Amino acid sequence: MIDLSLPLGLRDPTPDHSAHLAELSARLHRVFASFGYRRLLLPTLERLAVVERGLSGAALEGVLKFVEPGSGEVVAIRPDITPQIARLWAARPDALPDPARLCYDGPVLRVREARAGRPREVHQAGVELLGAGGPEADAEALALLRRSLDRAGLGAAVVEVGHARFAGEVLAAARLPRAARAAAEEALSRKDEAALAAAARGGRGRPAARDALPAQAGLYGEGALGRARTLARGIPGAARALAELEAALSLSRRRVREVEVDLGEVRGLGYYTGITFAGYAPGAGAAVASGGRYDALLARFGRPGPAIGFAVDLEYATQALERRDGARGVRPRRAPRR
Amino acid sequence: MIDLSLPLGLRDPTPDHSAHLAELSARLHRVFASFGYRRLLLPTLERLAVVERGLSGAALEGVLKFVEPGSGEVVAIRPDITPQIARLWAARPDALPDPARLCYDGPVLRVREARAGRPREVHQAGVELLGAGGPEADAEALALLRRSLDRAGLGAAVVEVGHARFAGEVLAAARLPRAARAAAEEALSRKDEAALAAAARGGRGRPAARDALPAQAGLYGEGALGRARTLARGIPGAARALAELEAALSLSRRRVREVEVDLGEVRGLGYYTGITFAGYAPGAGAAVASGGRYDALLARFGRPGPAIGFAVDLEYATQALERRDGARGVRPRRAPRR
Repeated sequence: MIDLSLPLGLRDPTPDHSAHLAELSARLHRVFASFGYRRLLLPTLERLAVVERGLSGAALEGVLKFVEPGSGEVVAIRPDITPQIARLWAARPDALPDPARLCYDGPVLRVREARAGRPREVHQAGVELLGAGGPEADAEALALLRRSLDRAGLGAAVVEVGHARFAGEVLAAARLPRAARAAAEEALSRKDEAALAAAARGGRGRPAARDALPAQAGLYGEGALGRARTLARGIPGAARALAELEAALSLSRRRVREVEVDLGEVRGLGYYTGITFAGYAPGAGAAVASGGRYDALLARFGRPGPAIGFAVDLEYATQALERRDGARGVRPRRAPRR
Repeated sequence: MIDLSLPLGLRDPTPDHSAHLAELSARLHRVFASFGYRRLLLPTLERLAVVERGLSGAALEGVLKFVEPGSGEVVAIRPDITPQIARLWAARPDALPDPARLCYDGPVLRVREARAGRPREVHQAGVELLGAGGPEADAEALALLRRSLDRAGLGAAVVEVGHARFAGEVLAAARLPRAARAAAEEALSRKDEAALAAAARGGRGRPAARDALPAQAGLYGEGALGRARTLARGIPGAARALAELEAALSLSRRRVREVEVDLGEVRGLGYYTGITFAGYAPGAGAAVASGGRYDALLARFGRPGPAIGFAVDLEYATQALERRDGARGVRPRRAPRR
């Protein structure tokens, strides 16, 4: 008996599913091109030193790395394409203008601890706007995300926006002891108002800042921006973050019908420094797209500049499209499994 | 100073060049789809045991392999996509009908000894027709190759055909001692008629077979098929190979304007067992496409069947397109290098 299995954790999409992923990618690239974004092909492997420069500690654990037998170098199968683009931006200023509008398509490999260290291959299509900061660039990225979802057939997807610094500024202003800070972050991820109130009691910040902490649990859904404005009054850093978000939303209003807001996130923000956004579609197991502003990453590679981008997870986006078509009574596109 | 280099041997295409590769791939896939070929996405990694089953010894030396830290398995970055498709054909009979028309797109990684063991990443787009043998399938593949080159803008490319068994049958019929056989193979690759004649003198085959050997050096260019017919008269295996090639050419005549013939190749045939073909375009450093019939590969994975396919080397094909546009006085598409 021949063992035809794949390396642990990997899998083959069926031909139907592959075709859907490829069609989706082609549709997205037509939208990216219509916004002036140019396609990059990037290598499968990077030196580990480059990958380390682009990712934070937690993300680095998910990198599949090995010694390349020919050279003895420690190399990694790329876990993320954005740091590759940051490397290229710094390495090839002759080829990449400032600002540069770039897009890409391809697999990345991530080892997920939740699945006993097995790699998962994720097919992405995404964009990066390098060298452009401020609300206009933020609004462009938001509008491109909305158009991409609409043209991909995911008009029903909701765009959720946040800001990478807001919750952190509120937490910092409360001046919690280290243990209480960890507890507060944990409580924030669960949106647990009572636990946040308990953590706030040990803070040394001004009362307004400590009062803001439990209110953070409610900074999503309808009216969240108004509540955030009230809450941020006494916390200048949070107020600045909120102003950035509101400026971007105001500029994109004509092109982005409606967004949901979630300002309560403090974890898993990676290299983001400004507005963040994600797309959620009915039927998909996770966000179909995610991204944000990362104004500190490019400098790590030696050519500083503001930047913003997002990636569509082709797998989850296709899942949403296939479920939508199935629900509508269209012949289910997924091939039957034995 | 930050080291922004890539792992040894890899490189970044410029954005212009990337865009050309991506556009070319999109154009090819439209042709593949018009012939009914469906797109597959295949994983970057395979277990080494699977790769070994699909490649011969020489090709295996070019595989980048390592121990996957999570599982301890020896895995390889795919050096070729055809064996992956052979694996899938055997592993998922529920998802792949017989016959199956499949196409793909993506990078493969090959370590080239000529470049001191450095890996080269090759972007390919290709097709496989699995479960279909005989001249009709051969003619379909030839017609699809021709149409692909034409629609890609490579109408000036020449299609060269051969047969994986022809030269080997002639060599076998000459019944050379082992050392003379090696010398003859070497002479054949140089098309060195004198050396072939010298090698033939030591053969124990019938005179007709020994006489055929030096004539092999001239089995290319105009009139090659006629000369091959004469030469194969006393060698049944060679005559059968030639008949297969002529049947395919006859069936594809309406759709494939003209081909060049080269029946003198005996090396580097990999898993091919029947007709072989390649596309050569002005301005490209090597073949822009290559492929052939491989009727023994699928059985190695446990689901036997005839098969034929080809891959376009997107890098060389784009090189040809860029040189063509440059020569025509069109703005050169390649970005300036510092």
